[in-house]
Amino acid sequence: MSEYRVAVVGGTHGNEFSGIHLVSQWQNAPEALARPGLSVETLWAHPRAHEANCRYLDADLNRQFTETLLGDPQQRNYEALLAKALDQQLGPKSDPKTDLIIDLHNTTSAMGPTLILLQNDPWARQLAAYVKGGMPEAVILLEDNEPESGWGYLCSVARRGVMVEVGPQPQSVLRQEILDQMAQMVGLILDFVSACQLGQLPSLPAEVEAFRYLETRTLPLDEAGRPVAMVSRELDGRDFQPLAPGDPVFTYFDGKVACLGGEKTLYPHFINEAAYYQSHAAFSLAEKITLKP
Amino acid sequence: MSEYRVAVVGGTHGNEFSGIHLVSQWQNAPEALARPGLSVETLWAHPRAHEANCRYLDADLNRQFTETLLGDPQQRNYEALLAKALDQQLGPKSDPKTDLIIDLHNTTSAMGPTLILLQNDPWARQLAAYVKGGMPEAVILLEDNEPESGWGYLCSVARRGVMVEVGPQPQSVLRQEILDQMAQMVGLILDFVSACQLGQLPSLPAEVEAFRYLETRTLPLDEAGRPVAMVSRELDGRDFQPLAPGDPVFTYFDGKVACLGGEKTLYPHFINEAAYYQSHAAFSLAEKITLKP
Repeated sequence: MSEYRVAVVGGTHGNEFSGIHLVSQWQNAPEALARPGLSVETLWAHPRAHEANCRYLDADLNRQFTETLLGDPQQRNYEALLAKALDQQLGPKSDPKTDLIIDLHNTTSAMGPTLILLQNDPWARQLAAYVKGGMPEAVILLEDNEPESGWGYLCSVARRGVMVEVGPQPQSVLRQEILDQMAQMVGLILDFVSACQLGQLPSLPAEVEAFRYLETRTLPLDEAGRPVAMVSRELDGRDFQPLAPGDPVFTYFDGKVACLGGEKTLYPHFINEAAYYQSHAAFSLAEKITLKP
Repeated sequence: MSEYRVAVVGGTHGNEFSGIHLVSQWQNAPEALARPGLSVETLWAHPRAHEANCRYLDADLNRQFTETLLGDPQQRNYEALLAKALDQQLGPKSDPKTDLIIDLHNTTSAMGPTLILLQNDPWARQLAAYVKGGMPEAVILLEDNEPESGWGYLCSVARRGVMVEVGPQPQSVLRQEILDQMAQMVGLILDFVSACQLGQLPSLPAEVEAFRYLETRTLPLDEAGRPVAMVSRELDGRDFQPLAPGDPVFTYFDGKVACLGGEKTLYPHFINEAAYYQSHAAFSLAEKITLKP
């Protein structure tokens, strides 16, 4: 039986400290990640962004891994070049040598320990159930409404890719609680793929609560493209809490309040994420779903 | 009676959004700050750092305003030059034209709405009592253990200087609750100096709880100057809560825990502040004191 190849990647964004710290630690103590049937490597994706203490130098590395961008010889900013090199190293996306990439991220939003899955298939549903079983506080977020290749995420260059997204943690800070949650979730993912590889998967619950990404809402802007409102105080910090039609979402700087429209209760996340300041993304919306492994 | 000159300054640090937003808003609606007996100007101290979405370009602007640095012709980094220009505009420190500077700051630490005072004199104690009276959740922090001129704070170039420091707020984010707290505290300070100027100060409580800065603790470092520990999860987020000898303060990356020494319960603040990442400052310690206005 050939070994299942896993890459655990940290520091895709230079100011998200948990993954950088864990990957550095695991490079000195690889036994912490060793599991039967697995070959696990660790990679610090973007040390130069960390040296500069910022998310990226020229462009967001974690949006560079579409087939279009990887194949475009005009793409010559630093992260585009780095993406091509990482695709060679871990992929290539067209025929990957890596079976699974686990990419580690932090958010300034209060999302807790979130496992982001890019497809809804039996493997992903079983992984979700396994992780929730070992870590009830884990949040499962499914981003399957765009073809996996479309997102441009680093983890999409392997056969399978997942992201571990833990917050709230300000940029450029290490919080022990966040670090511990990230390490625990990575351990559970490795336990799961090891059990799969050995044919020793335990029985799993029949249903798992999850959230399915629907859309991202941007701040209201004026004609010059500047925000004229902020996330309302009632919404801020309430990631994955129910948001009903009529609940306030934006407070305009003139005092007016905008509320959620529609007819369905939804679940906001990435609320007021600092990294989305330039894109003016205010929050994303998900629906609550039930996964049946 | 000559008018009392107040400067409300925001954006001394480019990625602390609340003050930048409020100053911009007040420049369009100066009546919000108008008070009898006062001449109030608003100033955005460092727009270029905000354009770069960072705290500063070359050096921390809010450490440049010592007499030594202001008078040193060798100081030619961007913030040193900007400090000299601001000193000309608002000071000069040796004979200030501004009676009071209110400098607006955010912290990623959970410090709440904190009023930082640089001296312990009747005026400062009365201000503390007035602000606490109007805003019971306000925290009074006294940094009087170094001569005021020594800190190098921007607000030190006026006859009197105070800082309004509100958190938790990640860098590069606007949180409505934090913004509202900052605006409320600035309003109370202006109400106070207006009342003083008119001789209409109301009766004040006999005692006010405050914290007095003692020292800053840095992360434990290895011989190469890299951190070997992080703020412990028990301490993180507990700004101004009592910290007793024997309480954990650092968790080493090898799992060991370091506790507070000494024999006195102290009050940590600026815990895990992201801006202090480069200096490795982990938290500051204060003692609780009672001010008698």
